[in-house]
Amino acid sequence: MPKPILVLILLFTIISFTDAQPEMQTPPQLNLMPLPQNVRAGSGQLVITQSFSVGFAGNKDLRLQAAAGRFLQHLSRQTGMLLNMGPTDGTSATLVIAAEHAGKDYPELGEDESYDLQVSPSGARITAPTTLGAMHALQTFLQLVQPSPAGFAVPAVVIHDQPRFPWRGLMLDVARRFEPMSAVKRAVDGMEAVKLNVLHLHLSDDQGFRVESKAFPKLQEKGSDGLYYTQDDIHDLITYAADRGIRVVPEFDIPGHSISWFVGYPELASAPGPYQIERTWGVHNPAMDPTRESTYKFLDKFVEEMAGLFPDRYFHIGGDEVNGKQWDANPKIQEFMREHSIKNNSDLQAYFNSHLEKIVGKHHKIMIGWDEILRPDMPKTIMIQSWRGQASLAQAAKQGYRGILSSGYYLDLMQPAFMHYEVDPLSGDAARLSPEEQQRILGGEACLWSEYVSPENFDSRLWPRAAVVAERLWSAPSVRDMDSMYRRLAFINTWLEWLGNTQVSSYYLMLHRLAGQDNMAPLKVLADVVEPVKDYTREDLAATPATSLSPLNRLVDAVPPESEQGRLFAELVGQVVAGKATPATYAQLHAELTQWRGNDARLQPLLQRSFLLKEVAPLSHSLSLCADTGLQALDYLGRGQRAPSAWAAQQMTMLQQALKPGHAQLLLMVAAPVESLVRASAGTPVANAHRGKRFEAEGEK
Amino acid sequence: MPKPILVLILLFTIISFTDAQPEMQTPPQLNLMPLPQNVRAGSGQLVITQSFSVGFAGNKDLRLQAAAGRFLQHLSRQTGMLLNMGPTDGTSATLVIAAEHAGKDYPELGEDESYDLQVSPSGARITAPTTLGAMHALQTFLQLVQPSPAGFAVPAVVIHDQPRFPWRGLMLDVARRFEPMSAVKRAVDGMEAVKLNVLHLHLSDDQGFRVESKAFPKLQEKGSDGLYYTQDDIHDLITYAADRGIRVVPEFDIPGHSISWFVGYPELASAPGPYQIERTWGVHNPAMDPTRESTYKFLDKFVEEMAGLFPDRYFHIGGDEVNGKQWDANPKIQEFMREHSIKNNSDLQAYFNSHLEKIVGKHHKIMIGWDEILRPDMPKTIMIQSWRGQASLAQAAKQGYRGILSSGYYLDLMQPAFMHYEVDPLSGDAARLSPEEQQRILGGEACLWSEYVSPENFDSRLWPRAAVVAERLWSAPSVRDMDSMYRRLAFINTWLEWLGNTQVSSYYLMLHRLAGQDNMAPLKVLADVVEPVKDYTREDLAATPATSLSPLNRLVDAVPPESEQGRLFAELVGQVVAGKATPATYAQLHAELTQWRGNDARLQPLLQRSFLLKEVAPLSHSLSLCADTGLQALDYLGRGQRAPSAWAAQQMTMLQQALKPGHAQLLLMVAAPVESLVRASAGTPVANAHRGKRFEAEGEK
Repeated sequence: MPKPILVLILLFTIISFTDAQPEMQTPPQLNLMPLPQNVRAGSGQLVITQSFSVGFAGNKDLRLQAAAGRFLQHLSRQTGMLLNMGPTDGTSATLVIAAEHAGKDYPELGEDESYDLQVSPSGARITAPTTLGAMHALQTFLQLVQPSPAGFAVPAVVIHDQPRFPWRGLMLDVARRFEPMSAVKRAVDGMEAVKLNVLHLHLSDDQGFRVESKAFPKLQEKGSDGLYYTQDDIHDLITYAADRGIRVVPEFDIPGHSISWFVGYPELASAPGPYQIERTWGVHNPAMDPTRESTYKFLDKFVEEMAGLFPDRYFHIGGDEVNGKQWDANPKIQEFMREHSIKNNSDLQAYFNSHLEKIVGKHHKIMIGWDEILRPDMPKTIMIQSWRGQASLAQAAKQGYRGILSSGYYLDLMQPAFMHYEVDPLSGDAARLSPEEQQRILGGEACLWSEYVSPENFDSRLWPRAAVVAERLWSAPSVRDMDSMYRRLAFINTWLEWLGNTQVSSYYLMLHRLAGQDNMAPLKVLADVVEPVKDYTREDLAATPATSLSPLNRLVDAVPPESEQGRLFAELVGQVVAGKATPATYAQLHAELTQWRGNDARLQPLLQRSFLLKEVAPLSHSLSLCADTGLQALDYLGRGQRAPSAWAAQQMTMLQQALKPGHAQLLLMVAAPVESLVRASAGTPVANAHRGKRFEAEGEK
Repeated sequence: MPKPILVLILLFTIISFTDAQPEMQTPPQLNLMPLPQNVRAGSGQLVITQSFSVGFAGNKDLRLQAAAGRFLQHLSRQTGMLLNMGPTDGTSATLVIAAEHAGKDYPELGEDESYDLQVSPSGARITAPTTLGAMHALQTFLQLVQPSPAGFAVPAVVIHDQPRFPWRGLMLDVARRFEPMSAVKRAVDGMEAVKLNVLHLHLSDDQGFRVESKAFPKLQEKGSDGLYYTQDDIHDLITYAADRGIRVVPEFDIPGHSISWFVGYPELASAPGPYQIERTWGVHNPAMDPTRESTYKFLDKFVEEMAGLFPDRYFHIGGDEVNGKQWDANPKIQEFMREHSIKNNSDLQAYFNSHLEKIVGKHHKIMIGWDEILRPDMPKTIMIQSWRGQASLAQAAKQGYRGILSSGYYLDLMQPAFMHYEVDPLSGDAARLSPEEQQRILGGEACLWSEYVSPENFDSRLWPRAAVVAERLWSAPSVRDMDSMYRRLAFINTWLEWLGNTQVSSYYLMLHRLAGQDNMAPLKVLADVVEPVKDYTREDLAATPATSLSPLNRLVDAVPPESEQGRLFAELVGQVVAGKATPATYAQLHAELTQWRGNDARLQPLLQRSFLLKEVAPLSHSLSLCADTGLQALDYLGRGQRAPSAWAAQQMTMLQQALKPGHAQLLLMVAAPVESLVRASAGTPVANAHRGKRFEAEGEK
């Protein structure tokens, strides 16, 4: 797993949300995500009654019919009304779909995905060049349905829409920890809803080989603990995804990250073995032997089989993080390098990649890999997925290579939604490219690496944050209003639960597990205001190193990556600090702080009874201390009285302590806003706590 | 659907929960439901680690192995720990299962279901005569797992357990409204958890015929709107249920309640037709023609086919609610009756049943039907399911017939759990039967009739209340402590969600639907303290009569049948009224009432924006009024000052209004406890509001 080196800068600045968006005429209350390119509000609304029907005015290929059927099921579920599930013939239907062509059975990169959606009080019409656009329009329609005084309704609106980028992906690491196919399909359902169109499966890594090979069955038999997808599963998934306009790109990470291959086939490795499935995380030494002909013979046959299984034109070979230690230690490899004038390990990997590229090409696929595969001598057809950032991507584009961005989109780093939202594939160095070079940047992919992802918290690690990456890759770059984004994100989060995702419901169940037979209310009070630590600090803070067998049943595994309550609290505090708070704001802050202040006493008995909760006892104590301080500061502010500086200094010391995550690997999101209150009450220069403390990733150092 | 005639009596009495239970040595914090017959607490606990294993010391038939596999999966899910899923050989496992015999592949009525479970700090052992008992023991074990300071653990305990009744059923009406097989299977999962052992499917009624017949395909083709189970679905369900120790009894309700049959086969009816699927509820006129030989030929072939499809020995023919109007209006039938000296319609139905019983017997099944089928001339082999009550059941037992109770167990009547809990098959007239006669009462069935049940609220109509019926039918009659029951019920409710049921998660989604894009918090405040109206008053209060096509998307469809918050509020008020309240109780009541008082202002804008919520506006207003009154009364009480009688009288008038359900078909559960507060504050004799107002079903009038 490529890990960006992040420079964390605490920025105490006011974030601007005032970007003018003159071209957007979005009515403020449309809960669309991603926002369409062009929205014009009409007057009136289309009421959805039980006689609602769908009809086809143009092409009606099977995929479109299936999409219309799913649409009706969703609409029925969403409204609770039984609807006539059959399509109505002709143009008398409430919603008429006029798609000119069927489009490809299996979606292709760059296909026209545009659509027009017109809704008037008397009906709705979708116009699209192909089924792909029509399917997007159906998702837009569903997001527009809301209860109104007259019934469920869609506001009258004219939408013209098309994606900004053709490659809008989601990478799932199902290798480190396996996810059952049901979870992957839920993810696909969510992808369809937010118009993502590439599912990238990281299918092999040191910790597991996750797809059935018939040519080399020991790959899954020895390398997966029995946790792998059969070829039937894959066929089924590909059809499922294609039906939703989504491509499936497989990744087999080589020549490093491949211990799971060596358990069954040690002869592929650069040291004799034997090998066992790796349980720890990180960069490990084993790597394929790039000097032996037999390696390429194996890969030829393997790629042939997988190229047949996955219809997509793109084939991801990983290629990241080879530390070269096995190569250094193998005299034969060293001799081979001398013979062939290969100067270093990087050149040796290039030699490997160049052979691999020919194999991939022979089987009619285009090779894609992480930044490391980029070498000047590689053919311009290959594609780069950048975990290093816009600069690396821009460099590739300058050299004529196409690429996609994943730096800044790593969902497993537990960053808040706004941070991912701010990352644009065409910003930074990429902004200075020529239009032709910019064309080579095809989009990006949200990535979910799975060290700390179980089937249970899979959905909450993915959603709703993947939706903001989807918006960044679909919508205009000027769509940047954070308040609008967060408002719509809350809506999409519920919508994703309607679609079967479980990020909210699992949270409750995981808290119930932690609380056992006790009333979980005080636990939820604490859980609602903490977040998992960010980036890779979870590993640094671990009491004992985690492995792929570690249970993921702690509070840090249960809580969402971003605390909504913490965010809203920080916003209210921002109003107080800015002198813009109303009495209602003061009252609300007072009520929240009072609840938090008393929570530790209520929670402590429970913390003592459960081994899983002992570690959060200091955090719970901190919450009460912070809340007490916050109430005092609020009191000073409310009375317009300056807080004594000695008091403030004392509180700051406590708050600095509260800001530190402990072994529980959790951050208390209340601490930073309370710090702002204390500063404000003491008349000290105040950092704005609008979004709490802000971390900014700078990509490559 | 047989509907008991209920006499509702408002009882303002203190309910006693003090029944001595000397034989129960249950440690107070075991969250078992149903409670075992005998529990002896040991010392220490068995800690569940990742090396936990299951082994077999006796029989290990396939069903037991599958049960052990599911057990490990549940345990893994419950603890969040990856466990070794394979069974350990021999007796070295953490949990050793010693089941003497495999038991029947398909469960039979009266099979030995007993088990012993011994847990010590070093391991656990299950001993059971058959697999059936061992499977029950596994469920008991799972319910005992809790987080402890040392890890997940099961307390050391010795349990001997066996059911009180052999027939512990759940009847699902999948005819009036269809439930997808996934919902039925979720129900089976829940049944297994609470040790219910008969799934009774009401497969046909006026509104639908829900199973594929190959002999008479027009039954499902014309009679189901396409919503039916294929024979493959049924095979699959039977295996699924049998694997969990659960029998599947089919019911085809004839000769009335059979319009859906007549859509495809009008010749079966007593009037020529044509017929359409019935959409309205109630007792309808059409009935099979009992005078024609062709009717019995049809039924012979039909029963033969269904007898082959369903392996259970029992075959339910319904037989309820024939109003005889079609018979009265048909001259040929009238002539037939004269010729055969059949005096009235009741005798004509007996004539039909007697023929039917021979057909059922011919295909090696035992006939079961509702009270109406009981006639002195029927053979003693038939079985009665009583919707009329213990008196009817006792009468049947006296006459030598076996029977089961469903009166008092109708979950669709939206009664609180304690009401079902209080109903005992061997109480009332049945208590006065001889031991031999009592033996004929085999148990009971919870029934879920589906007029107001959609796939979405199916789980919340079923759970957790079905679990208290399960306890009544399994546990000793002396197990009657309501506080213990409610405490354990809350736990089982969460446990059922772990098993995939959705009664909690669906509630949130349905509230989100009602609230649309708005913050749903104030809606939830109201929703948490209301309950759907009870018994059949929903129909009486309907603005327009509901049909099988009516959307079930209103607040009344979303809220649980019993308000937990309302119940807890009433308990606190009970403490105040009894003069036993602590300052903390006063503070909590004050906080709740304050929130409720302010809620209407917060909620009203939302109510005005959604057509689905307009109807609850008066209710929301009432909540605030009640809360305001409650705060005033609390104030008087807190100050030890008597409230002026004029004030009290005024409040009582308002409260009487608040107690009335309107078109929203919802009851405000706060009103009655506030009434108690007002009475107490004014020094008026106070009814105890401990469980709110209490309705008592009296069975037959």
